[in-house]
Amino acid sequence: MMKIRIVATLVLTYSVTFGSMAIAQTTDPLPSWNDGKAKESIVEFVAKVTKEGSADFVPPAERIATFDNDGTLWSEQPMYFQLLFALDRVKVLASQHPEWTDKEPFASLLRGDVKAALEGGEHAILEIVMATHAGNTTEEFRKIVQDWLATAKHPVTERPYTEMVYRPMLELLAFLRANGFKTFIVSGGGIEFMRPWTEKIYGIPPEQVIGSSIKTKFEMRDGLPVLVRLPELDFFDDKEGKPVAINQYIGRQPIAAFGNSDGDLQMLQWTCAGKRLSFCLYVRHTDAEREWAYDRKSSIGRLDKGIGEAQANGWTVVDMKQDWKVVYPSDKQ
Amino acid sequence: MMKIRIVATLVLTYSVTFGSMAIAQTTDPLPSWNDGKAKESIVEFVAKVTKEGSADFVPPAERIATFDNDGTLWSEQPMYFQLLFALDRVKVLASQHPEWTDKEPFASLLRGDVKAALEGGEHAILEIVMATHAGNTTEEFRKIVQDWLATAKHPVTERPYTEMVYRPMLELLAFLRANGFKTFIVSGGGIEFMRPWTEKIYGIPPEQVIGSSIKTKFEMRDGLPVLVRLPELDFFDDKEGKPVAINQYIGRQPIAAFGNSDGDLQMLQWTCAGKRLSFCLYVRHTDAEREWAYDRKSSIGRLDKGIGEAQANGWTVVDMKQDWKVVYPSDKQ
Repeated sequence: MMKIRIVATLVLTYSVTFGSMAIAQTTDPLPSWNDGKAKESIVEFVAKVTKEGSADFVPPAERIATFDNDGTLWSEQPMYFQLLFALDRVKVLASQHPEWTDKEPFASLLRGDVKAALEGGEHAILEIVMATHAGNTTEEFRKIVQDWLATAKHPVTERPYTEMVYRPMLELLAFLRANGFKTFIVSGGGIEFMRPWTEKIYGIPPEQVIGSSIKTKFEMRDGLPVLVRLPELDFFDDKEGKPVAINQYIGRQPIAAFGNSDGDLQMLQWTCAGKRLSFCLYVRHTDAEREWAYDRKSSIGRLDKGIGEAQANGWTVVDMKQDWKVVYPSDKQ
Repeated sequence: MMKIRIVATLVLTYSVTFGSMAIAQTTDPLPSWNDGKAKESIVEFVAKVTKEGSADFVPPAERIATFDNDGTLWSEQPMYFQLLFALDRVKVLASQHPEWTDKEPFASLLRGDVKAALEGGEHAILEIVMATHAGNTTEEFRKIVQDWLATAKHPVTERPYTEMVYRPMLELLAFLRANGFKTFIVSGGGIEFMRPWTEKIYGIPPEQVIGSSIKTKFEMRDGLPVLVRLPELDFFDDKEGKPVAINQYIGRQPIAAFGNSDGDLQMLQWTCAGKRLSFCLYVRHTDAEREWAYDRKSSIGRLDKGIGEAQANGWTVVDMKQDWKVVYPSDKQ
């Protein structure tokens, strides 16, 4: 019953042109999205900017779309997945660091008391990240991330982390790319934590992944060059840092931006202040049953100021519970 | 006579596949290159990495090629063009800076004594760059660069700077892209000095331009977000900085790299140490008549250590005088 209605209402047509050959498609490009304002606004925006000859037309080279990662493309609860990776690394590395048994935040972590470990706030997190992310080469770190993702399971869902990506957002990425958009990740997460898997999971190649980073140093080892990861923050890609990084890496203003928290606010402001027709969207976590429900008071992925800004500016707000038929790719529709 | 020989010897075939339709081309993709080892080595490398099923085949996503800019894609004598831009900016801005009449390096510059101004070395250059490149928004700076390029003429050739790009290298860029390569600039020059024009001149979009940068700051001005350029160096993209920047921006090792100076050496080492079949090339400035001749002793674009490294590693070395039929696009063949 549900399915029939969907097929009937979604006979929308988009076309991709190769040379002189136009292929018309009448299938729904966003089948995991329920009908409603959010879905309509996306489809309408894409139709407008791709319509040649119209006032809103944007040339393909300028169709830049930026996506936050944690909470926008995959889940981020009960804490950022990269932090869960770091906690696992602390356990692996503990035998090389006997001093950790008496030293916070490591001592608490090794006793299994994550809450106590994180009481040191940002400083504690930075210490954990530097101890677990630096000191190796870029090649070694890539392999550590890949190996971890191949076996690690989420503490609540018991699924591999890369299966906790949002199916509606995967469809949105593909829909935008089919319409000439170049899709980028602009995340507060570590750039080298994401790059080993974003191409396979999201179809986003490493050179379109922007994130926080630590410094690296070029060295010759036995006649071969390596890049060594240093325990020193290079760039924190959050809040005001996001437009700064977009300018640094991409060099032009996006025309579409997607986020879920106040950390994405400046990216959305920067994107929707451009001269072109633009599109800004917030994903709201409203689904305690299929995912998590949190916003103004969450320490992870807080969305507070952004709610008012979205209303004031007419940005699209996705209500996960209402707007998404499924959350994860393996969920049953 | 010359032309007949060229046409006869260059019946090489490459194919581009769109869907199931293969287009065979028998035209020479590098018509401004004389036959010889340099040209052969390029064509052979591209044939190998694009041959499906062969051991050397590289999937398109990994066909990353990085190019230095100054001295590799356009000229850099009698000094870097960006420095000539900065000197012009000093004159424009002088009326707002009465203190410059007594302050080096500005005082010498305003007297027309560039040599004396640059006697302060790197420190003097940095002062000139900060005084002329910072203090505006990214949007304002883009316009300043565009306006300057539209009218400025090179002091020796009296040509617009964007006409002093190397025609053989434009062909090389196009040839690589036609074979599935993604072409990047990795330059010691300023990232925001290059981005306003590289797409039009080289076909390289801003997001594939990497360079030195100053810091920027996000600000709301009258309710609209801007990025303000600060007089503070963010990253110097030269020597060891080039592989660091390649990793930071692109996130994977290139399989081809092109440079002309010792400043490009680490980029070439990094590229040609990868596991894939790779290609490294130095352009040597040997043509005092059509361009400039300089290498081991030049303060601009010094190529000294790189010569020995190229020999030891079997990298391709282009002799401009011998290998290039023409230098600039408007030159007569």
